[in-house]
Amino acid sequence: MDQRLERIQLPALRERVVSAQQAASWITDGMAIGLSGFTRAGDAKAVPNALVERGEKAPFRIDVYSGASLGCGIDGRFAQSGIVRKRAPYQSDSLMRASINSGEVQFVDHHLSQTAEWVRGGVTGPLDFAIIEALGITEEGLLIPTTSVGNSMVFAHHADQLIIEINTAQPMELEGIHDCYEPEALGMRQPIPLVSPRDRIGRKGIPIDPAKVKGIVWNDQPDSPSPIEPPDADTNIMAGHLLDFLRGEVKAGRLREQLPPIQSGVGSVANAVLHGLIDSEFEELELYSEVLQDAVFDLLDSGKASFASASAITLSADYMERIYRNFSQYRDRLVLRPQEISNHPEIIRRLGLLSINTALEFDMYGNVNSTHVAGTKMMNGIGGSGDFGRNAQLAIFVTKSTAKNGRISCVVPFASHIDHTEHDVDVLVTEYGFADIRNLAPRERAERIIANCVHPDYRPQLQDYFTRAVAQGGHTPHVLGEALSWHELYTGEGTMIKKTL
Amino acid sequence: MDQRLERIQLPALRERVVSAQQAASWITDGMAIGLSGFTRAGDAKAVPNALVERGEKAPFRIDVYSGASLGCGIDGRFAQSGIVRKRAPYQSDSLMRASINSGEVQFVDHHLSQTAEWVRGGVTGPLDFAIIEALGITEEGLLIPTTSVGNSMVFAHHADQLIIEINTAQPMELEGIHDCYEPEALGMRQPIPLVSPRDRIGRKGIPIDPAKVKGIVWNDQPDSPSPIEPPDADTNIMAGHLLDFLRGEVKAGRLREQLPPIQSGVGSVANAVLHGLIDSEFEELELYSEVLQDAVFDLLDSGKASFASASAITLSADYMERIYRNFSQYRDRLVLRPQEISNHPEIIRRLGLLSINTALEFDMYGNVNSTHVAGTKMMNGIGGSGDFGRNAQLAIFVTKSTAKNGRISCVVPFASHIDHTEHDVDVLVTEYGFADIRNLAPRERAERIIANCVHPDYRPQLQDYFTRAVAQGGHTPHVLGEALSWHELYTGEGTMIKKTL
Repeated sequence: MDQRLERIQLPALRERVVSAQQAASWITDGMAIGLSGFTRAGDAKAVPNALVERGEKAPFRIDVYSGASLGCGIDGRFAQSGIVRKRAPYQSDSLMRASINSGEVQFVDHHLSQTAEWVRGGVTGPLDFAIIEALGITEEGLLIPTTSVGNSMVFAHHADQLIIEINTAQPMELEGIHDCYEPEALGMRQPIPLVSPRDRIGRKGIPIDPAKVKGIVWNDQPDSPSPIEPPDADTNIMAGHLLDFLRGEVKAGRLREQLPPIQSGVGSVANAVLHGLIDSEFEELELYSEVLQDAVFDLLDSGKASFASASAITLSADYMERIYRNFSQYRDRLVLRPQEISNHPEIIRRLGLLSINTALEFDMYGNVNSTHVAGTKMMNGIGGSGDFGRNAQLAIFVTKSTAKNGRISCVVPFASHIDHTEHDVDVLVTEYGFADIRNLAPRERAERIIANCVHPDYRPQLQDYFTRAVAQGGHTPHVLGEALSWHELYTGEGTMIKKTL
Repeated sequence: MDQRLERIQLPALRERVVSAQQAASWITDGMAIGLSGFTRAGDAKAVPNALVERGEKAPFRIDVYSGASLGCGIDGRFAQSGIVRKRAPYQSDSLMRASINSGEVQFVDHHLSQTAEWVRGGVTGPLDFAIIEALGITEEGLLIPTTSVGNSMVFAHHADQLIIEINTAQPMELEGIHDCYEPEALGMRQPIPLVSPRDRIGRKGIPIDPAKVKGIVWNDQPDSPSPIEPPDADTNIMAGHLLDFLRGEVKAGRLREQLPPIQSGVGSVANAVLHGLIDSEFEELELYSEVLQDAVFDLLDSGKASFASASAITLSADYMERIYRNFSQYRDRLVLRPQEISNHPEIIRRLGLLSINTALEFDMYGNVNSTHVAGTKMMNGIGGSGDFGRNAQLAIFVTKSTAKNGRISCVVPFASHIDHTEHDVDVLVTEYGFADIRNLAPRERAERIIANCVHPDYRPQLQDYFTRAVAQGGHTPHVLGEALSWHELYTGEGTMIKKTL
């Protein structure tokens, strides 16, 4: 017998093994599919690639929902082949981004906790197929996910039919780290009984209806490694500012020495901040996050962190090799949950999270843009930053003060797109310092942000704008005709630096 | 014995009765106070007025926190006397608004559910006094609120000292309609055990520490009546569109015939929408809202609504007279909660609310401005609209398509201030129709909003802007140099109508 069949412990399903091409042939023009995958982890790989190959020969268009970003170049191949009409809720691929910005792909940039509600509530419309990567299927009919849970549970439960990709490249030691829980339907929903990042409230796999499994496909491709850059001088300085802020909160009695559970977004800055905690005085850290990056494993190795909960594990190539080789030593300190639970407002508010996410730009009143370059061009999407920022105890946003070698100021008079409003943002951090803007009126916030966060090359011109705005009055003073002029200037002249004030 | 003393059933406290002037004398320069009061209901009246009188003679400045808006002209008197340095989290007074917009008062415009977290967490700094209107004090030491609960519980528990205003003008039948519950401190917080608008999870009054009660003051002034205007032709048409949307959702199977609990914001349009439900086919309605206005009592009278939960009761003069005269017939169908609970994201998401709030303007991509005229001048504040919009099953925003006799379009290219982002807004309604923008990409949303919501006088110029923006490309196309030009035009020429396209 094919050894791989041992991964399918439900005998009736062993007969459903098909080729990726055959499974892909079931997906036809106008359909909507739900794919496993969250921040390049645990994504279905074989069938999406076979779909693209078919689409390159005979065009068709489908709607593609996922957990979050897909790896293995799949979103790029989707974009190049032109087979995707609608894409939600998140992506991070340069080719897909180009298709979104040209208007070819209709991208729905959606809070990662909410797609599950839309699927259950029929807002997305029916999903024809869920395509879910799995370690295997147990004899009780549980699908065991791999390196992410994402939206796999809601897709598996609500899609008409199911295609399972069993990934034989993933270590069986992953079994047992998942906690699969789906809230009751609206109208009969109970409290989600999770009061600590360590709590297990569901099952070790996703219960599936065997009758809905139309096919099972083998796949032996590892996840794409994460391209996260190591900390540099600036990110280390920013991590230092953030630690200073936290120390101040402890000293003022607003935080205990044991910090609240931490959520940290995707990216180099967030990674650097977590690295900064390794050498800090803080102990017994817990993470309640959406993705576990390299630094989380360093925190676990150092003994600084005692537990980590998320929806996915996304590692760089070196870490991936090392961590999965020694995975048994991490198993008891990790849990992966559906993104609906990792990012749920009920839990985020209850746990009082300390939430750290990356901004693309923010304005002098504290409005944050996480998604759009110059207000129009999509980067990746809001991801979980809105889920966490809106409901966390502390919503902290970090960015370098400038981009493009200083030609863009990341602190502007008026954010060119707003993903997190002034009402939701607590603390802003750049390499120049932090601005704690809680319980401040807009004018007070502007003074603090200009003093603490803006690059010196832009400070005089932002101060000048603010002074002239205040002269015009208003709770949130602006010179409307100039509010977006920095972005216009950059678009026209390649820099936001004004020649004269 | 003074009959009024029967309202104080804790004998030790009877000796603490003082004049409003004496109580006000304890509040001195630099202090912070927390006042009862939510949408003009249940506000402390005597001591704030005495404070103003003192301030008019001898200047001092204090920070004033409340539940939401205060009635009885108190915010206006605060503003005129100049005694307020900081004001949070909401107000709706024209004089206070002027002081906020001139920069004299530092206004912190804050989600109504979150002020309690800030008070508990020390973010507001210590509160020197809580001044709470009450029906009376029971022998178990429970302070029974009057027509609102607001932030009274967290103020009473966390302020250093307490001044209680016993309002003898309020009917004792109000006792028993309050459900006072405060979540545990962060780090030990449990699920809030509320799964239906009808659930009672707390106590009938606010437990107080008698040692903290510095004084008790008599007050016999009724609440300010609400100035809500009756439905007019436009608001009735908007209510009709909203009902059409709901019928479509039921037909599509996305809502059951028994609608989810309804939240409806303050104001004439929201009131008209609730009135529209009286003659509709929907039955057994439940409200889980922040304030109960006139229309809710009409819904209860008509038998259409069976239960209503909120944080305050705010009525027009006629209704106030009638409802409080016959209050016993409503008592079993009402509950008033702390605003932290009426507006809590955990509960709003769990109950799957249908949330209806008023917008000041929205843009063609679905970003909503609830607070700032022309991006700079504060109206009232975000109130609970962010609490509800962000976490509701359906976040619906309503506004007439124009204001100022057609000189302002309430649908613009780029919202001049953003309180609710494109990620949070589900349905937009004007008298021209509704736009359901769920699961749509920005360009798809713009097409629907232009077709369904914009006033015909502005449709060609918004379509023209959109067409030229799309020609420039991007996920969310804009012509940055023109994005705020409608607001500039209005500021300069008194109309948003362009002479030539």
